[in-house]
Amino acid sequence: MIKPGPEMHILVVGSVALDTVKTPFGEAREVLGGSAVYFSASASFFTPVSVVAVVGADFPGESLEFLKKREVDFAGLERRPGRTFRWQGEYGFDLNEAKTLDTQLNVFAEFHPRLPDAYRARELIFLANIDPELQREVLTQVQGPRLVAADTMNFWIREKPDALRRTLEQVQVLIINDAEARMLAGEPNLVRAARKILSWGPRLLVVKRGEYGALSFSDGGWFAAPALPLEQVYDPTGAGDAFAGGFLGFLASTRNFDEANLRRAVIMGSVMASFAVEAFSLERLHNLTYPEIEARYRQFKALAHFEDL
Amino acid sequence: MIKPGPEMHILVVGSVALDTVKTPFGEAREVLGGSAVYFSASASFFTPVSVVAVVGADFPGESLEFLKKREVDFAGLERRPGRTFRWQGEYGFDLNEAKTLDTQLNVFAEFHPRLPDAYRARELIFLANIDPELQREVLTQVQGPRLVAADTMNFWIREKPDALRRTLEQVQVLIINDAEARMLAGEPNLVRAARKILSWGPRLLVVKRGEYGALSFSDGGWFAAPALPLEQVYDPTGAGDAFAGGFLGFLASTRNFDEANLRRAVIMGSVMASFAVEAFSLERLHNLTYPEIEARYRQFKALAHFEDL
Repeated sequence: MIKPGPEMHILVVGSVALDTVKTPFGEAREVLGGSAVYFSASASFFTPVSVVAVVGADFPGESLEFLKKREVDFAGLERRPGRTFRWQGEYGFDLNEAKTLDTQLNVFAEFHPRLPDAYRARELIFLANIDPELQREVLTQVQGPRLVAADTMNFWIREKPDALRRTLEQVQVLIINDAEARMLAGEPNLVRAARKILSWGPRLLVVKRGEYGALSFSDGGWFAAPALPLEQVYDPTGAGDAFAGGFLGFLASTRNFDEANLRRAVIMGSVMASFAVEAFSLERLHNLTYPEIEARYRQFKALAHFEDL
Repeated sequence: MIKPGPEMHILVVGSVALDTVKTPFGEAREVLGGSAVYFSASASFFTPVSVVAVVGADFPGESLEFLKKREVDFAGLERRPGRTFRWQGEYGFDLNEAKTLDTQLNVFAEFHPRLPDAYRARELIFLANIDPELQREVLTQVQGPRLVAADTMNFWIREKPDALRRTLEQVQVLIINDAEARMLAGEPNLVRAARKILSWGPRLLVVKRGEYGALSFSDGGWFAAPALPLEQVYDPTGAGDAFAGGFLGFLASTRNFDEANLRRAVIMGSVMASFAVEAFSLERLHNLTYPEIEARYRQFKALAHFEDL
């Protein structure tokens, strides 16, 4: 299945943040977070990743050292005067939805992504959950990428629907959760919502459903990926970005976009999300190994497999 | 996979009801319903089913004609003076949970299951969602069944926890939804809840999760079955009993209880539930054909299949 030749490189544009997170299992204060960080930590197990983002003068640069060692390139990380983006959230026992307690955009409020020249030819682009206008600013700076994937959220769906629709015209893979898919399409039925969204540009819609797994929709068919039942979920923060990182990282490393490999990629996204939630912040991804990733993929296979009649 | 020889016969004990149901797509008044009816309609595609239940003098006997034609035996259906059990419920747009508007037990309030002699040797028993003490009354009347499966609900978990635990000691397969599993175990994490429940008697726990599919837990491993994304869900009433009917009916017809066949049975349960919700009451099961069932099984396979790395 894996094609010979070098893997594709990924560019991610998103946030680098300091998170304060409370769950029923504990609390973490001002720990490394943000969509670009979770995404790149996850994707870096598969392929080199370049990050475009912004931090403030207060950002502890050494917190990114472990990612730099994993071939994550931060030449596109701008450091500006002021404070780093901060997010504070809390999860209840069901751990399915974060309650946002506080968001301080800080330097992120004035952020405009500027790609270093070396990044313009990146083949896979991930537009993490940022203003859809900024997502398009990124796309004006790249040269014929093979694949553009994007995330978004309820805030942009509500506040900038037109800008978001224009971005979607340029996106091949949209990776969002089920509430977002329903809200984006204005349609409570997920199948009809998916059909509508696929008519707007994306050729593949990946719908994340937390502990219920993921569904993907395309002309090639529908695919239902399970989530691994986990005995301990410590911190769901970043699970969605870890999912996107596993999904795109796997595609980048295999350079194969056929239906069978897209399904493997959805499972790999689920695999990486399942690791991300096992500890606070990026702790679990720090010491994760590739053999563990492969073993968990096999666990997903054993979990979901059934025979023909 | 299918062993030669005659299929096993199933005995179901549960309710025969007149339902009034409102969903965003319409309303049905005083239509045929009840756990024993949905279960037997579904299981009858696979094997003969005998029903033990009670109805009132007002029950329209002709409504069961289509089931009698399908080898469902109602010799155990008691007719008593008084009114038939009635349930009235409503579903919102998410269709995941019924809001019960009214329950009139009527003749069901005094119900004690009495098995015709011919039923005592039935090999597979399904104890639908009734008082756990009545479930045990059934078990005192049967002779060495191969398999006892049961359902229950929040009301019995709350009101008769000790009786329910005693019933569970005699049950091999428990088929409940995820909220019930968590509540029964007093444990928000589903994996830990499953482990606890499996320590109380059942060797297999099947957890139904509506539009998110089903999970089964046993010593043989965990299995995640998807739900088919449906464009039209008209009426979720009875989906859980149709699931149980497909699951046990398939096991009865194949007479094979190994892990691979139990997984097929969980998928067959999901198949039958997916049909049940496509129309009000039992409408869809009226005209369903076995080739349609096989085709949908293949759809589930296509939906969930992915390759090794």
